[in-house]
Amino acid sequence: MLRGYGWTPYFVEGHEPEPMHQAMAAALDTAVEKIKEIRQNARVRGNIARPRWPMIVLNSPKGWTGPKVVDGLQIEGTFRSHQVPLSDPASHPEHLKLLEDWLKSYRPQELFDAQGRLKAELAELAPKGERRMGANPHANGGILLRDLRMPDFRDYAAAVPAPGVRGIGDTHVLGPFLRDVAKLNSEQRNFRVFGPDETLSNGLEALFKVTNRQWDAATVANDEFLAPAGRVMEMLSEHQCEGWLEGYLLTGRHGLFNCYEAFIHIVDSMFNQHAKWLKVTSGLPWRRKIASLNYLLASHVWRQDHNGFTHQDPGFIDHVVNKKAGVVRVYLPPDANCLLSVMDHCLRSRHYVNVVVAGKHPAPQWLTMDAAVKHCAEGIGIWQWASNDQGVRPDVVMACCGDVPTLETLAAVSIMRERLPDLKIRVVNVVDLMKLQPQTEHPHGLSDTDFDELFTKDKPVIFAFHAYPWLIHRLTYRRANHDNIHVRGYKEEGTITTPFDMTVLNDLDRFHLVMDTIDRVPRTGEKGIYLKQQLKDKLIEHKQYIDKNGEDLPEIRNWQWGASRQ
Amino acid sequence: MLRGYGWTPYFVEGHEPEPMHQAMAAALDTAVEKIKEIRQNARVRGNIARPRWPMIVLNSPKGWTGPKVVDGLQIEGTFRSHQVPLSDPASHPEHLKLLEDWLKSYRPQELFDAQGRLKAELAELAPKGERRMGANPHANGGILLRDLRMPDFRDYAAAVPAPGVRGIGDTHVLGPFLRDVAKLNSEQRNFRVFGPDETLSNGLEALFKVTNRQWDAATVANDEFLAPAGRVMEMLSEHQCEGWLEGYLLTGRHGLFNCYEAFIHIVDSMFNQHAKWLKVTSGLPWRRKIASLNYLLASHVWRQDHNGFTHQDPGFIDHVVNKKAGVVRVYLPPDANCLLSVMDHCLRSRHYVNVVVAGKHPAPQWLTMDAAVKHCAEGIGIWQWASNDQGVRPDVVMACCGDVPTLETLAAVSIMRERLPDLKIRVVNVVDLMKLQPQTEHPHGLSDTDFDELFTKDKPVIFAFHAYPWLIHRLTYRRANHDNIHVRGYKEEGTITTPFDMTVLNDLDRFHLVMDTIDRVPRTGEKGIYLKQQLKDKLIEHKQYIDKNGEDLPEIRNWQWGASRQ
Repeated sequence: MLRGYGWTPYFVEGHEPEPMHQAMAAALDTAVEKIKEIRQNARVRGNIARPRWPMIVLNSPKGWTGPKVVDGLQIEGTFRSHQVPLSDPASHPEHLKLLEDWLKSYRPQELFDAQGRLKAELAELAPKGERRMGANPHANGGILLRDLRMPDFRDYAAAVPAPGVRGIGDTHVLGPFLRDVAKLNSEQRNFRVFGPDETLSNGLEALFKVTNRQWDAATVANDEFLAPAGRVMEMLSEHQCEGWLEGYLLTGRHGLFNCYEAFIHIVDSMFNQHAKWLKVTSGLPWRRKIASLNYLLASHVWRQDHNGFTHQDPGFIDHVVNKKAGVVRVYLPPDANCLLSVMDHCLRSRHYVNVVVAGKHPAPQWLTMDAAVKHCAEGIGIWQWASNDQGVRPDVVMACCGDVPTLETLAAVSIMRERLPDLKIRVVNVVDLMKLQPQTEHPHGLSDTDFDELFTKDKPVIFAFHAYPWLIHRLTYRRANHDNIHVRGYKEEGTITTPFDMTVLNDLDRFHLVMDTIDRVPRTGEKGIYLKQQLKDKLIEHKQYIDKNGEDLPEIRNWQWGASRQ
Repeated sequence: MLRGYGWTPYFVEGHEPEPMHQAMAAALDTAVEKIKEIRQNARVRGNIARPRWPMIVLNSPKGWTGPKVVDGLQIEGTFRSHQVPLSDPASHPEHLKLLEDWLKSYRPQELFDAQGRLKAELAELAPKGERRMGANPHANGGILLRDLRMPDFRDYAAAVPAPGVRGIGDTHVLGPFLRDVAKLNSEQRNFRVFGPDETLSNGLEALFKVTNRQWDAATVANDEFLAPAGRVMEMLSEHQCEGWLEGYLLTGRHGLFNCYEAFIHIVDSMFNQHAKWLKVTSGLPWRRKIASLNYLLASHVWRQDHNGFTHQDPGFIDHVVNKKAGVVRVYLPPDANCLLSVMDHCLRSRHYVNVVVAGKHPAPQWLTMDAAVKHCAEGIGIWQWASNDQGVRPDVVMACCGDVPTLETLAAVSIMRERLPDLKIRVVNVVDLMKLQPQTEHPHGLSDTDFDELFTKDKPVIFAFHAYPWLIHRLTYRRANHDNIHVRGYKEEGTITTPFDMTVLNDLDRFHLVMDTIDRVPRTGEKGIYLKQQLKDKLIEHKQYIDKNGEDLPEIRNWQWGASRQ
């Protein structure tokens, strides 16, 4: 089986310590020889065919050299030597004796002097400096970490002459930026992009202008972007991608994992361990900080039109925010310029897990690069150009977080500003999800004063959220206005349908958001009640139209911010 | 590699449809022959050595018989045939032509009559009844599902002469019940227990009195409980256990997956797909319900004393409750009799995912079997024997959910009843976590009236919770008294330490719970302030003691409910 996987295994097998030490040393010598040969072969003779790397299989007794027999049962070499072979020596004198014999078998009198110090001649046997295993700089990768050479992300901006212009898909704008990060760091060879065969389908095709997928297996006609050296690592295994990236970061390099949002749950447990490692090591003074573990979750819940229900799960961020606040960050940029700004920030950061959720489909763009930089630096803010409560108290706060919820919120706002022009509306957009938490809970958290200024202390907040709606409640339950926050998000309703219908199925669509507002703002009065009836009718029209045409209503597909007011 | 895994592979390779059909038919015949031979060998000749099962490897072009070349690029046999090989035929006449040619290559005129109906002579080629692939009863397992023969779980009760007696470890009490479920159903062969090598370490050793681990590989001296046929399936792969169990349930059988709580996250993504399948199929009238997917999460966050931080993650239930309420259930029985009652219920249930969190370490027992049955049927309730607010309004509600939080809550109550005897305390225990949600959100949810009666509308609630504390807020944020609910739970603080210190690190211990109460109930007055100071001192004493002795203070280890009042 191991040969089938492409290794050349060397077996070290036995149970007598002395010959086993010799056998192991010989196997290591052979393996190192083989590795040198392979390198020589590639570097000098240019033979880059996939080599059979050596591997060593050590087959020794479990619990080797520990207690042999305890209470009449064989321990050494059996499952019973797992964990603690001798129970409670304090109350079992015969166990205490076995423990003593065992420890004395290491002959401490030969290793330590009368003061209990390791004998100098033995201490000298250890290698010096970085040749010590515990001082290998690859085991404290922050020592080796060099800053990425970064292009100016502003140079990749999408042109936004007015809010609402159609974009090409946010990750497609990010692609050229990542391409140039790869290019600028090709010499220092310390940046890689990992993913489960989705670099193209997540919209990052620009990377292949300057690099390839690293691939040393056979190629066939029509293969594309495969080469023995490349900065993109692909395998349809989220586990493999996560493992590769963690190892790459831990040894002092930088990287990004792009993945379908739903399937990143595959590595929940691996993320857990990395986050725990970050938390613990950030308290160890000798540990240097490493580059952050960056996730780009493109291909998200709202645009799984042809994949359907199986591909819809925005819950990775719920999982992430359970980990220690000091090491986790979650960003939901509403458009391409915000995505650029956020990604620039994440790639420069240290010792965090950054989760970035972004879309790949053509979608409206809201902010110029200047505005995006400010918005992302603040992490949350009022979009004044979309609001009409300047100088007065708002009747309602329309909050949004995520690209699709932002689109639906702005579409809802445009309906209300046209149909209920007296209504004073404030639009708040959230990029940095952790802003919602109290300062006591997360270092990014807004102060209560700042939060109350944005969301008011007593007005209804209609919050359109990218993921499961209760996450917003979990983050905001301590805020003064929490009882007025009404959240719409993904509630596990989905199928293969149109993009807009996905929002309708989960009550996140513009019409539901308007109806929610009418329900919560009594002063919309009779006008509101009539509008609500019309929107209900519109939802039925929507269902009938998509059943017949297989695509969304033209007024949905072609809706543009501000169009009706020009 | 495939041979290394133990298979005998048969290769069907080529690109010409006609010979490939023949080759596939021949390979299938051979494989079926081999399977029959292996069975014969085992059943008639008694040769139960591990066989080399046949497997078929089909190596055919990707996109086979689809469009060969589109826009000058090779499609058939390349990565480009993935998903949609022809884009938008409506606006590309040349793509429309290719699509037409492709579809016509199936010669529909030979398959359908003038009315577009499948020709009768072709329809007759299909097998009849259950021999049709789509009507195979194993693909609609509910058809094959037979009720488990269940022993009376009351017969396995732990004796609880008074609340607080020491138990042997709750899962150790469950073991004999599961043993007899296995025994009673050995003839119908429709019950299995799955786990990643943890059946023993999760306290279910009783199973091996009547059955074994199913194992057809080699055995060595000192192996235990391995046999060619057994109802326990073990492999140190949570993925494998989950996959086995899902397949077992989907084909009409019953089972239980026992796992360390932290590592069940390994199957988050697999759970997702099963929960989605349950949700969708529960709406399909022809789909029969299958047995529930039962998780027993023993070895939980609070008792990872020697494993430490890596083994602490109670977040699987956060993940589970994101799925549709109709199919998920979460139980945290506080003692062994409750665990028996809950498990009996879960094993009888249909088409749910049931998560049961239980301890395996010796721990106090609270309820007699009669009381446990009532408590679990209600799912939540006031423990009158621990409360002293009978006939008056409580000053504080001490709520608890999970075995360790229940212990700490009752210890806190005992301190307060002794030291602050005027304080009116109500103790509420939660077994069925979904009771906390509104009725509109989960079918188990309490009505607001019932919730308000238990938790009051205006009194402080000190809630000691097994898992991440914010989950309680996420479940209760719509309740009238939500702002008064103060939750303690696991907040990602842990290391290798004593059991009690784990609760101290997370402010869930009895002393913190008392101090939380004093902070929130002003009428504890000067007495409260002095008590708080003493408890702070006690916490320092605790730290000093465990640093020196490596175990908890005697007054913690030996604490017993009611002892001080007798």
